[in-house]
Amino acid sequence: MATRLTDSTTYAHLWSTPQLVAVFDEPHRLQTWLDVLSALADAQAELGLIPAEAAEQIARNARADRLDLDLIAKTTRHTSHSTLGLIKGLQAILPEPAREYVYYGATVQDLTDTWFGLVMRDVGRVVRVDLVRTHTALLRLAAEHRDTVMAGRTHGQPGAPITFGFKVATWADEIGRHVARLDEGDRRWAVGQLAGAVGALGFFEPDGVALRRLFCQRLGLHDPVISWTTTRDRVAEFGSVLSLVAATLARIGNEVFELQRPEIGELSEAVRPSTVGSITMPHKRNPETSEHLDTLARVARAAAGLLVEGMVGTHERDGRAWKTEWFALPEVALAAGTAAQLAVDLVEGLVVDAERMRANLDGSGRGWASERVLAELSRRFGKHRAQELMQQALTRKPPGSATAEQDLIASLATLDIADPADLAAWVARPAIATAGAMVDAIVARGTPGMVG
Amino acid sequence: MATRLTDSTTYAHLWSTPQLVAVFDEPHRLQTWLDVLSALADAQAELGLIPAEAAEQIARNARADRLDLDLIAKTTRHTSHSTLGLIKGLQAILPEPAREYVYYGATVQDLTDTWFGLVMRDVGRVVRVDLVRTHTALLRLAAEHRDTVMAGRTHGQPGAPITFGFKVATWADEIGRHVARLDEGDRRWAVGQLAGAVGALGFFEPDGVALRRLFCQRLGLHDPVISWTTTRDRVAEFGSVLSLVAATLARIGNEVFELQRPEIGELSEAVRPSTVGSITMPHKRNPETSEHLDTLARVARAAAGLLVEGMVGTHERDGRAWKTEWFALPEVALAAGTAAQLAVDLVEGLVVDAERMRANLDGSGRGWASERVLAELSRRFGKHRAQELMQQALTRKPPGSATAEQDLIASLATLDIADPADLAAWVARPAIATAGAMVDAIVARGTPGMVG
Amino acid sequence: MATRLTDSTTYAHLWSTPQLVAVFDEPHRLQTWLDVLSALADAQAELGLIPAEAAEQIARNARADRLDLDLIAKTTRHTSHSTLGLIKGLQAILPEPAREYVYYGATVQDLTDTWFGLVMRDVGRVVRVDLVRTHTALLRLAAEHRDTVMAGRTHGQPGAPITFGFKVATWADEIGRHVARLDEGDRRWAVGQLAGAVGALGFFEPDGVALRRLFCQRLGLHDPVISWTTTRDRVAEFGSVLSLVAATLARIGNEVFELQRPEIGELSEAVRPSTVGSITMPHKRNPETSEHLDTLARVARAAAGLLVEGMVGTHERDGRAWKTEWFALPEVALAAGTAAQLAVDLVEGLVVDAERMRANLDGSGRGWASERVLAELSRRFGKHRAQELMQQALTRKPPGSATAEQDLIASLATLDIADPADLAAWVARPAIATAGAMVDAIVARGTPGMVG
Amino acid sequence: MATRLTDSTTYAHLWSTPQLVAVFDEPHRLQTWLDVLSALADAQAELGLIPAEAAEQIARNARADRLDLDLIAKTTRHTSHSTLGLIKGLQAILPEPAREYVYYGATVQDLTDTWFGLVMRDVGRVVRVDLVRTHTALLRLAAEHRDTVMAGRTHGQPGAPITFGFKVATWADEIGRHVARLDEGDRRWAVGQLAGAVGALGFFEPDGVALRRLFCQRLGLHDPVISWTTTRDRVAEFGSVLSLVAATLARIGNEVFELQRPEIGELSEAVRPSTVGSITMPHKRNPETSEHLDTLARVARAAAGLLVEGMVGTHERDGRAWKTEWFALPEVALAAGTAAQLAVDLVEGLVVDAERMRANLDGSGRGWASERVLAELSRRFGKHRAQELMQQALTRKPPGSATAEQDLIASLATLDIADPADLAAWVARPAIATAGAMVDAIVARGTPGMVG
Repeated sequence: MATRLTDSTTYAHLWSTPQLVAVFDEPHRLQTWLDVLSALADAQAELGLIPAEAAEQIARNARADRLDLDLIAKTTRHTSHSTLGLIKGLQAILPEPAREYVYYGATVQDLTDTWFGLVMRDVGRVVRVDLVRTHTALLRLAAEHRDTVMAGRTHGQPGAPITFGFKVATWADEIGRHVARLDEGDRRWAVGQLAGAVGALGFFEPDGVALRRLFCQRLGLHDPVISWTTTRDRVAEFGSVLSLVAATLARIGNEVFELQRPEIGELSEAVRPSTVGSITMPHKRNPETSEHLDTLARVARAAAGLLVEGMVGTHERDGRAWKTEWFALPEVALAAGTAAQLAVDLVEGLVVDAERMRANLDGSGRGWASERVLAELSRRFGKHRAQELMQQALTRKPPGSATAEQDLIASLATLDIADPADLAAWVARPAIATAGAMVDAIVARGTPGMVG
Repeated sequence: MATRLTDSTTYAHLWSTPQLVAVFDEPHRLQTWLDVLSALADAQAELGLIPAEAAEQIARNARADRLDLDLIAKTTRHTSHSTLGLIKGLQAILPEPAREYVYYGATVQDLTDTWFGLVMRDVGRVVRVDLVRTHTALLRLAAEHRDTVMAGRTHGQPGAPITFGFKVATWADEIGRHVARLDEGDRRWAVGQLAGAVGALGFFEPDGVALRRLFCQRLGLHDPVISWTTTRDRVAEFGSVLSLVAATLARIGNEVFELQRPEIGELSEAVRPSTVGSITMPHKRNPETSEHLDTLARVARAAAGLLVEGMVGTHERDGRAWKTEWFALPEVALAAGTAAQLAVDLVEGLVVDAERMRANLDGSGRGWASERVLAELSRRFGKHRAQELMQQALTRKPPGSATAEQDLIASLATLDIADPADLAAWVARPAIATAGAMVDAIVARGTPGMVG
Repeated sequence: MATRLTDSTTYAHLWSTPQLVAVFDEPHRLQTWLDVLSALADAQAELGLIPAEAAEQIARNARADRLDLDLIAKTTRHTSHSTLGLIKGLQAILPEPAREYVYYGATVQDLTDTWFGLVMRDVGRVVRVDLVRTHTALLRLAAEHRDTVMAGRTHGQPGAPITFGFKVATWADEIGRHVARLDEGDRRWAVGQLAGAVGALGFFEPDGVALRRLFCQRLGLHDPVISWTTTRDRVAEFGSVLSLVAATLARIGNEVFELQRPEIGELSEAVRPSTVGSITMPHKRNPETSEHLDTLARVARAAAGLLVEGMVGTHERDGRAWKTEWFALPEVALAAGTAAQLAVDLVEGLVVDAERMRANLDGSGRGWASERVLAELSRRFGKHRAQELMQQALTRKPPGSATAEQDLIASLATLDIADPADLAAWVARPAIATAGAMVDAIVARGTPGMVG
Repeated sequence: MATRLTDSTTYAHLWSTPQLVAVFDEPHRLQTWLDVLSALADAQAELGLIPAEAAEQIARNARADRLDLDLIAKTTRHTSHSTLGLIKGLQAILPEPAREYVYYGATVQDLTDTWFGLVMRDVGRVVRVDLVRTHTALLRLAAEHRDTVMAGRTHGQPGAPITFGFKVATWADEIGRHVARLDEGDRRWAVGQLAGAVGALGFFEPDGVALRRLFCQRLGLHDPVISWTTTRDRVAEFGSVLSLVAATLARIGNEVFELQRPEIGELSEAVRPSTVGSITMPHKRNPETSEHLDTLARVARAAAGLLVEGMVGTHERDGRAWKTEWFALPEVALAAGTAAQLAVDLVEGLVVDAERMRANLDGSGRGWASERVLAELSRRFGKHRAQELMQQALTRKPPGSATAEQDLIASLATLDIADPADLAAWVARPAIATAGAMVDAIVARGTPGMVG
């Protein structure tokens, strides 16, 4: 019945993971909804609002796999009401006495928002686990390649040297902050909703506050203290944080994509033996995971934007913003959650060609040394005079060399501003000591703990 | 298997229509894909590239309902290749001789892009039909309510009078331009794709150009003249036009939403007898269709933005932009297409309370006449002097009236600047003649023809 | 020279505030840039990298008002280099010995990113102050109107009662979380940047790490531990949080906009005596501040999206993402910062018409009591049976009443399901006790302290 | 006074061009506004609504350089009214009799929307001119490099051959469609606005329709037929088309960026002698124009999104959407307009290294021939069997060769499936005949005429 490629038999796996399916897939979602209704009945029974027996029957019988989905769908369409179909379906599988006490005094949004709270909690934690795994793998890579020298590139052009460990450490640094954001956000967004018709809980008077507390407790969610039917910063923050997470993973993916170009050849994705790259060009090895991280980040960003837009709702319920969330929250969660798992695979399997890194660096005639040479010249001539000397050298063609740009040292030698031995010493080794020190600092911080 | 609420048993109907399902739903989509492959084989047979018999067998046997979807899904995941699964599945249902000639020399993108061409053509036309129906209904409303006076509102505040027909005519005016945009765009986006590995069609040399022409012809699509693997303006334009269409329909929806507030009560959605508005507040009549038009416009806009972003691809194929389109094109098409059908329902069933419109206008003590009074005073005193007089009058409390703001004429009378009879004449009737003339001009244009 | 309406003589005040001007306006910005360069020189002198005298001269002479802006602009355009113009201009105002030691070993991005760190710190705090003021005013309003009964509205339709204090408390609740987000984010985004050519700080070897620490210290910024030239989560988080803040303020603005409609008339903006609403319709009072909050939220959201997109940069510097930030960071800061100040004005001056609130609630024939009546009927008949009874009552026209919908009690009386005295008791007073309790809980939390 | 880097002395040139400055810069904009008011007065005089002498005086005296901007700014802020300041300023420079007849019966939005119409017309045409120049240069490049063979690249990996002319022709193809979009859109968006207070033109009754026609005529704009105060599809379409234009130019820019990597080295931007690339790494040549095209496309896209969002306005004027346009329309126009001029420079100066293109293609051991070999094998063995043979060959290491992937022919030879002479013939030359034919088709279409 899927009308979307993202939900299709053949491509759904690109847009989801088994763990996310366990959150979002229709049977799982429906069971979670029934669990929410059970928790509500349970809390209501404890406060004496409904018979204890009804609550027990609901808990025992509310199984999604017993629901008649076709009937529910038909009733939903017939009544244009978001949950009347579900209620009818549920009543059909409940014993007589429980039927009048299921979904008692709650509204559609109580159900969907509490589900949102569970989704944000659970997906947040799934993503956190994958980020921690990625972070662990990154620290290992950073340590291993602390001194693996390679060209730093700016504006797509190789320049002064960095180390691959340094590059990786900036990824770890960023991911570390995302874990903190998830931990800080969790206490805001892992909440339940019990608001009733307009948020004032008049139906349950005088038990509304106590009921909500118990209800949230049953589900392992925080109590929101006040109804949040049009107070949607939690949802928007969740989406924003996930869109940031996805963007970082896309940055890693794009870096691999670029460095896997055979003309550069410094990194490559691990290839599973069963993978078929291209039918018409079978010799190619496409960075498909890396590319897909970027795709997912775009989807996550667009969906997150809708959630921020949805914060601007009017009055006590605004169907425009609310239904938009029905679309956007699952999208951002699926996109970022899928990205997080792909990132684990990508980073854990990353193939690093340290020799090629060094060869590429040297390819430009020690241009990589220019920053260091500039530093040395600056000490002798001042910074701006040193720059002028460098510019001069680089536009002068040294005798016998192909082009001035191809050998920095030969060019500088023609200016006669430093002892040849000094010149040689300045370029003897790439200046990567500080890069290494920064790697050490990031590694020393360690990986965030597994519990938020 | 739906992981999205938008594809769920219970809510899919909010995000689609039967006509869109016939385009996008998996079985339909797969059949269209097979039809594309049949058209390709047919064109290839005509050029002698494959045996005629193979083409016939493909045409006869390529039925989506015979495909083993599980096998296809498994192969897709196993090989990480977008269509190898489909090819295997297809070979399984083809007679031996045809197996080697199906999907001959084409690539995944040839298949998905040609499908995109068909989707854009078909959805564009579905939307066009609904826009024309909406336009027809709007012209009828405009003519009927040409002189139905109501408050014009700016910044949410009632001001000078308009007519309801005038308001509706501005909607029709906007929709008329959308039909023109769809017609202009159709010849750009209703194209096929046959590009091969990198767009140069080396596989088919020297028959590439001829083959593409025949292939497109078979499918009723335009020939693109040159491969467009990363030339995505067509897709982005389609998305942009649909997002504009959806925005207009959301404007109509929001207007109904606001004017259906019981405190205003000038418009209301038709209510189907089976509709249940609110369980806890059964007396309410929610403008659900109107609201949903706004929701759909948001989704369409976000998805359209992704399609514009996707225009910036690199080289001859860019998986990042490409897979983003797999997500975004169906979303924008489903959102705008659903909105177009909802708009037909909304506009055709719209309930207009002309008495309430007039009553609301009069509710503000003939404040509605201020523009007209200003015009008359301007003729006598000059415009800016007239404004000062108006301001003065409105801050002076006329004897015996509740507040100055409540009766413009009483206020003005206190200034002694015009003959009371003149004053009375100026406000005798709302100045809506020009509004009516504009309605006439829009109605005179008529509705765009049913064929683009 | 302003090419944007947002920077024009006449309209700039709509898009900025004096405090934001003090951060962003060109003379202020340039002075901050010079201060950053002074701090760098100072730190370098402490480490013995440049003469102490040079650092002192830089500190003394680097005054923005002495710069020759035309010369700087001309050099910038001539060289196509982002800061070479500034360097030339700076050298022109520095004594000879200092000229070679200004901007020593740093790059453009070190300057602009450190400025970003200062901007994020300072704007974050400016916004925080205004949010705290708004929060304070909201708690006061919430307490004052704890029991001011009004219609809760869902889908634009009045339903069960809430109190105005409850509505306001949900605003305060949301803003309270924003203050927490600003406090949590500040330690991430209030950092300096010293990265050199490619982030590895080869120029300063072996002093890079120590120099960065001192440099940041001088400016009151955190040390980032590792270069963040393409690690842009800080900037994106800042933008996201501000876009969330702006969205909340737009929610408040839109609520005022709607409730200021004269047909509703429950709230209105304070009017400054000098304000002129409409020239042609002088009797109107437009909710201009409220509207503008929504405008600013849109701008903030769009700009924040660009910052998230900008996280996906390649290699060690990516001009595409970087220059996008030059556009987007000021926009989001100006939009959200302006909104925060407008919100203070709006909330502190808000005019509440409690009588109108009550009158509007009662306007619908005690429909507001339906939730409560449903609760009572549910206790007797079960919830779903109670709903059916309600539906039945509301479609039955009670004798002598205009329409069934206009009087809930009369309608129910016709069903003979409850004692008239009971019915009367159920609707004797709106069920707002729980709303009041939630107000109390929010007020009890108090306003966040003035220091983050 | 600029608070934005985009309007700053030093960086404004990155975000504008002289032609755009002539549209948007404050003095120019104000003069255009005064011209609009003159045109209105002129039309009003013709209809006898104001004295002819007043219109003449307005035309003669309404000079922007005589306005007292400080006074205007102060009055605007004092009254919170968008044009009252301008009116006061204007009255101060007009002779007594004209003062009462300037801005007669029009509203702020009449002025700003008519200015929008002029801006859309003029910027649309400026962009069109630059697109036509770019298109011309592209056709020249395409013809010149019709047969310049290079690697087609998909997913960042070199594959089968294309020609550089073919790549360029796809750019021209896309730009050609943009010119058509601009021409089609121009007749929709180059319109004036005269709507009065609420769109009904009551002030001018019975002359409203005639006056609007004359007014538009005077300004060289189309008559909109009906007021469009909240009918904003024109503005949104303009923004959408420009965002598409900018995206195409960014695609070209990104392609240059990637192919200018020294590891690839196939293209490079022309370098002006005065350009300074990097201070610390003076040997680098950064693709700054190419990068900036991508930056500008992002800004254009974000702003265009705001314009689509702004289509959803309520009633007869909606300040929320309207003021958003004040921000977004100039941004999208400036971004896309600047991009169009940069693209002319980039394309006209593009440096093509045909030798490097060929060398890169050959670098992969004739892997480029795989598509052609596959075609030949397919003719003999069927397509899918041929694929299996290719896969087999490529995983078999031929004796004496470094790796199987490095020489396709050697690998295939080991399979003994074709005569060595045949194998050699298949890879004798890249299969680029069809690419050439597509170039010819695009060149044959020619460049769109200079007039729309």
